[in-house]
Amino acid sequence: MTHDIFARKLRYAMVGGGRDAFIGAVHRKAIALDGQIELVAGALSSSAEKARASGRDLFLADARNHGDWRALLDDELKRPADERIDFVSIVTPNHVHFPVAQACVEAGFHVVCDKPLVHTREQADALVAAVARQGTVFGVTYNYTGYPMVRQAREMVRAGELGEIRKVVVEYNQGWLATRLEGEGNKQAAWRSDPARSGAAGAIGDIGSHAENLMAAVTGLEIESLCADLSSLVAGRALDDDGSLLLRLRGGARGVLIASQINTGLENDLRLRVSGTLGTLVWRQEQPSELTHLPHDGPKRIFTRGSPWLSEAAQRASRLPSGHPEGFIEAFANVYGGVAADIRARLAGQPADALAADYPRVEDGARGVRFIERTVASAASDRKWTAW
Amino acid sequence: MTHDIFARKLRYAMVGGGRDAFIGAVHRKAIALDGQIELVAGALSSSAEKARASGRDLFLADARNHGDWRALLDDELKRPADERIDFVSIVTPNHVHFPVAQACVEAGFHVVCDKPLVHTREQADALVAAVARQGTVFGVTYNYTGYPMVRQAREMVRAGELGEIRKVVVEYNQGWLATRLEGEGNKQAAWRSDPARSGAAGAIGDIGSHAENLMAAVTGLEIESLCADLSSLVAGRALDDDGSLLLRLRGGARGVLIASQINTGLENDLRLRVSGTLGTLVWRQEQPSELTHLPHDGPKRIFTRGSPWLSEAAQRASRLPSGHPEGFIEAFANVYGGVAADIRARLAGQPADALAADYPRVEDGARGVRFIERTVASAASDRKWTAW
Amino acid sequence: MTHDIFARKLRYAMVGGGRDAFIGAVHRKAIALDGQIELVAGALSSSAEKARASGRDLFLADARNHGDWRALLDDELKRPADERIDFVSIVTPNHVHFPVAQACVEAGFHVVCDKPLVHTREQADALVAAVARQGTVFGVTYNYTGYPMVRQAREMVRAGELGEIRKVVVEYNQGWLATRLEGEGNKQAAWRSDPARSGAAGAIGDIGSHAENLMAAVTGLEIESLCADLSSLVAGRALDDDGSLLLRLRGGARGVLIASQINTGLENDLRLRVSGTLGTLVWRQEQPSELTHLPHDGPKRIFTRGSPWLSEAAQRASRLPSGHPEGFIEAFANVYGGVAADIRARLAGQPADALAADYPRVEDGARGVRFIERTVASAASDRKWTAW
Amino acid sequence: MTHDIFARKLRYAMVGGGRDAFIGAVHRKAIALDGQIELVAGALSSSAEKARASGRDLFLADARNHGDWRALLDDELKRPADERIDFVSIVTPNHVHFPVAQACVEAGFHVVCDKPLVHTREQADALVAAVARQGTVFGVTYNYTGYPMVRQAREMVRAGELGEIRKVVVEYNQGWLATRLEGEGNKQAAWRSDPARSGAAGAIGDIGSHAENLMAAVTGLEIESLCADLSSLVAGRALDDDGSLLLRLRGGARGVLIASQINTGLENDLRLRVSGTLGTLVWRQEQPSELTHLPHDGPKRIFTRGSPWLSEAAQRASRLPSGHPEGFIEAFANVYGGVAADIRARLAGQPADALAADYPRVEDGARGVRFIERTVASAASDRKWTAW
Repeated sequence: MTHDIFARKLRYAMVGGGRDAFIGAVHRKAIALDGQIELVAGALSSSAEKARASGRDLFLADARNHGDWRALLDDELKRPADERIDFVSIVTPNHVHFPVAQACVEAGFHVVCDKPLVHTREQADALVAAVARQGTVFGVTYNYTGYPMVRQAREMVRAGELGEIRKVVVEYNQGWLATRLEGEGNKQAAWRSDPARSGAAGAIGDIGSHAENLMAAVTGLEIESLCADLSSLVAGRALDDDGSLLLRLRGGARGVLIASQINTGLENDLRLRVSGTLGTLVWRQEQPSELTHLPHDGPKRIFTRGSPWLSEAAQRASRLPSGHPEGFIEAFANVYGGVAADIRARLAGQPADALAADYPRVEDGARGVRFIERTVASAASDRKWTAW
Repeated sequence: MTHDIFARKLRYAMVGGGRDAFIGAVHRKAIALDGQIELVAGALSSSAEKARASGRDLFLADARNHGDWRALLDDELKRPADERIDFVSIVTPNHVHFPVAQACVEAGFHVVCDKPLVHTREQADALVAAVARQGTVFGVTYNYTGYPMVRQAREMVRAGELGEIRKVVVEYNQGWLATRLEGEGNKQAAWRSDPARSGAAGAIGDIGSHAENLMAAVTGLEIESLCADLSSLVAGRALDDDGSLLLRLRGGARGVLIASQINTGLENDLRLRVSGTLGTLVWRQEQPSELTHLPHDGPKRIFTRGSPWLSEAAQRASRLPSGHPEGFIEAFANVYGGVAADIRARLAGQPADALAADYPRVEDGARGVRFIERTVASAASDRKWTAW
Repeated sequence: MTHDIFARKLRYAMVGGGRDAFIGAVHRKAIALDGQIELVAGALSSSAEKARASGRDLFLADARNHGDWRALLDDELKRPADERIDFVSIVTPNHVHFPVAQACVEAGFHVVCDKPLVHTREQADALVAAVARQGTVFGVTYNYTGYPMVRQAREMVRAGELGEIRKVVVEYNQGWLATRLEGEGNKQAAWRSDPARSGAAGAIGDIGSHAENLMAAVTGLEIESLCADLSSLVAGRALDDDGSLLLRLRGGARGVLIASQINTGLENDLRLRVSGTLGTLVWRQEQPSELTHLPHDGPKRIFTRGSPWLSEAAQRASRLPSGHPEGFIEAFANVYGGVAADIRARLAGQPADALAADYPRVEDGARGVRFIERTVASAASDRKWTAW
Repeated sequence: MTHDIFARKLRYAMVGGGRDAFIGAVHRKAIALDGQIELVAGALSSSAEKARASGRDLFLADARNHGDWRALLDDELKRPADERIDFVSIVTPNHVHFPVAQACVEAGFHVVCDKPLVHTREQADALVAAVARQGTVFGVTYNYTGYPMVRQAREMVRAGELGEIRKVVVEYNQGWLATRLEGEGNKQAAWRSDPARSGAAGAIGDIGSHAENLMAAVTGLEIESLCADLSSLVAGRALDDDGSLLLRLRGGARGVLIASQINTGLENDLRLRVSGTLGTLVWRQEQPSELTHLPHDGPKRIFTRGSPWLSEAAQRASRLPSGHPEGFIEAFANVYGGVAADIRARLAGQPADALAADYPRVEDGARGVRFIERTVASAASDRKWTAW
């Protein structure tokens, strides 16, 4: 009977992600992809009217289509267990993450929250503490680590195939904020460049935090000290749109992290290069199914998603045979798949399978918040190195 | 009231695609992706037991989880309109396509059927006639034409950007049948290399027909005559695993079509090159978001999915901003999206939006069957050219 | 004393390659590159005046700057051995190859001749016989086989790394003849499209013969029968500008060969793909320092020129460390380097080092002539297969 | 009579570059390529015996094959003008550059010197002053700026096609010093990691200076301040083998410069990305014939060497049609070609054609020396920014 949870779809509610939003629809497609989770409730916008219209677009029942996220939580808590949501997906602008996430956790709901997790280290600590106290599942959609070949890279590093890591270069280059879009009515640009909604950082928070997470996920190395140069290169912009960092990593490796949104013509150029004593790995998000391995003592090798010689972690993150492209949504779906596996395990009273419950956790989100804070501090300092 | 159809998800039943099948799950993910269509019934295997177990995996209600496709049709016909399926998705091995599709059409159901459509030209003609008679929607999952950049290529050709087309080279190279997998218990290999289930052709039917469809979809050109060399290069194989064709296209263009499944190490290497008097287009399925345009009088251009300067047809086939990879499932979903748009339009009594209802039709499937038949005939002939 | 030949540069004369010519300057740069061979005489054009002006451009001494190739040969034969040329480089339009080459060989000179060697099989046979009789060195500048990674491919095939070869696809695509340049005063286009100067074939002779040579050099396989479709797609052109062939190779492998000069926007797209039972090799001339190896049972590997794990044949054909691009001229120089090694060995009375004397010979040139002849015959035939 | 200089080859002597040297042979091949310059004298090693043996390898006349560079200069000064060398090429280890170059300039000889020019800013200033005083030609072989597509990039920036430059990322990554080769008898590694012969910097001097030059040549921007982290990641190494810099450029652009020789498996990965308000340019040395242009408002464009729509500067730096790869040696030859054009112009008493005399000058070399010095100073500082 405990396995009943495997005989039904998981149920979730979404907060944020209504009409005009970008990332909410991506979450929903990612969640829908594998037919294991269904949307049953929502508070899809901070405007009650827009929230309800958005819910109707998604065929939500009126009773579970809320104009406000507090009403959603109240309603769900009153429902019987066999129809109550299993988790909440939070896809609002950044400044709303903390209150919603905190309330959900306190109410005992499992949560998936977009990144950056919250605005301040204090909020992050509070959230980590609440999750620990409540024992709930909390995933953070650092979606790029959901790519199979990122997991392959991580496993190769863990298996020692690179030897001791010496140098890491991670870049996240975009061009879409090369003009002052926030002055032209672009909603995505507007909140991302508004300190009140986006936090103390612009590009570093929006995409730099992805770069930090990617580096950390693959290498397992922690930042010891950093040296940041943040700039607002587009006139009139309140937050940074370009950042470059020198990194010193624990254990002695050196690093460079670049996050910039003013590289005209570049699309979503997240890339990672990790060099160790035995070899180098190179991965590019725009060609995510390939992982290039340059061993010190033999020809370059290109690993491709779906190949039988990949690690089990990479193979389980893959849906199609090699050569049949998977993309961004599948990687996103892998984060949700990990969360779902963890939730099902808890509902079934079983330990989670580590390979299945493979997703970024609240602690990863908190580390990302600290990264942003330390970067902003370094950028304001005349000293070369700012300690972590 | 006529728009009621837009206020609910479409409902479908699947025939085939149970446990151990490959392509059925791909169809289901593609259908689920956009949250517009739901699976409500199925006859998922030719084995009743496996069919029901497969249906339970997919959370089908017992009453609509059938052991036989005829029972499925009978049951659906008895149900009230407001719960009856809107269409049937047929994902069985090839030899089952015809009876199921014919019965569905005759029963008035809309259909999506995998390719190659049927085994013989007679069956194809019968099906085309039935669809015409019943006025139903009938899509064929030549999924590669669902890629946005394939549609962009098609639109550029239509707009005259290549001038008069002179040369087309289309290749579909795989390596997975380079050994005699069908003798080792591989189900996919077994039915594909069995004339009874796969038809008169092996690689030419399985992947050559995709190549033909891609060429036809992009160029709009028809084959006038062809010259084929089909071989079974793996010892003991009953059907061709390698084929190469010279083509003469109506209007004077020349072509080459290659379909081979014995290219060790190659994954799913479908590629197209079209040269006209003004320029050349190159597309590769394994990097589907790029379309290379080589104008005669300027630098090479790389168009990328999601860019604002693409044709409307390409833009509407895209879900994410450029640089956020989409893949095989999204392209597949675009075929279903086109079918769904057409079905909704008919249910609403409206003409379909041509850009929305963009999908391969039963006539495309019939042309593919003819292509296979003509290729097999040419391969058996000593004459250079076999007329279409 | 016998090693005296290694204490000086070799001396050569060039026939053809004057002002306005294209390939002559390439030969000269290739010859000059390694500082082992010097130009001392010439008859650089069929126009005596242009020949002499061209010789002055190249700092030739007046006494050895001839207006006619017969005068050149006469003059050289009269000179003492310690200043006489060691070989003649023939870079004239195709129709002049035969008389010059024949006269040089008959006079006892070593020769390097551009391709295609001659116009007819009879000429080719006569030349092969003359070379055998005279015992002279005779190289043919199928320069693409001079690329280190082509030699690496050849060595890997010879070493059995691909297993038994099953499929070969070789293409040589250009776009520069997509318009009727020969009607616009372009000298290169004019002679290439003129049967009197270029022979019975256009694109097939000019570039198809390179494709045939590349395939033969790498695979070692001979053509058993072929089926050709040759076309003149540009109106008013006398010779083919587009050709596609199906090939059956001795031993059972299948092949496709494409040579076309009307692919607008394509530059010099010579590419080869060879699939065997154990793996596939892919090489592209436009990125010549990479050789892609797709083993059946492991990840794709990219071999790069200059790497220590390459075959000795590939390493000896390389001048710079990996990552420092070499190109067309270096490959060309490798052909001359092979010829020079053979000449020096003969002058020293030593057997040539096979790895050093690695160059296409008169027999390769003769086979290329036969390839052209058989292709033209097949194109005129209604039968599918034309025997070699 | 003044044009006499165009009727003969230029003559040069080489200092350094004997047996076991690497770069000397590259210079010689580059110089030989175009048949315009001939080697007539040399002092090819600091060991007199090795120098003479090396000269015999190169067919030098005994009288001009010197064991010491001072003897070479003395001898040349005594020769009549019509056989005296036109310039000296200095290809010794770094610490010998200054005395040889200074002596050559003082003796009135034109010079080409490898980089980094000298060890200290004082030496650089002295050399710049001497060249100005003597009015001689002085080229520095920052060879990468000889690539046609680097010149194309420079011309596009100059023409304003990128708008105002905002971000520059230049990387030069190699892996060959990932192990302690200098302890294993590798001559190239030994002198490069020895402060006495290589100067105060390792990777930053050897390859970082190329990166700085490439950035400066393409963008024309000067460094205002920099922040460097230099490391010796291989145990026991005296000089840096890894360096990363944040840059602030005059006018407000931001930059990152990376130079590292411990990236296992990487070959010669010099790459540049320049983003301006209107577009981005990307160039990679390992694929030098392509320049990628990403305009803000249209599809990505790939410019290829040899295309008629390139700038005149790029076209004149090219020898072969597009698609026929040129490489490292050709780029190197373009530096020598520029020097030769300048020397010929001076010998002819004519002003040099700016497009022909396109080469890095002594001032560029001096700026490179300053770059190294400032970088080393920054690396030793706790302050974030070190002024230029």
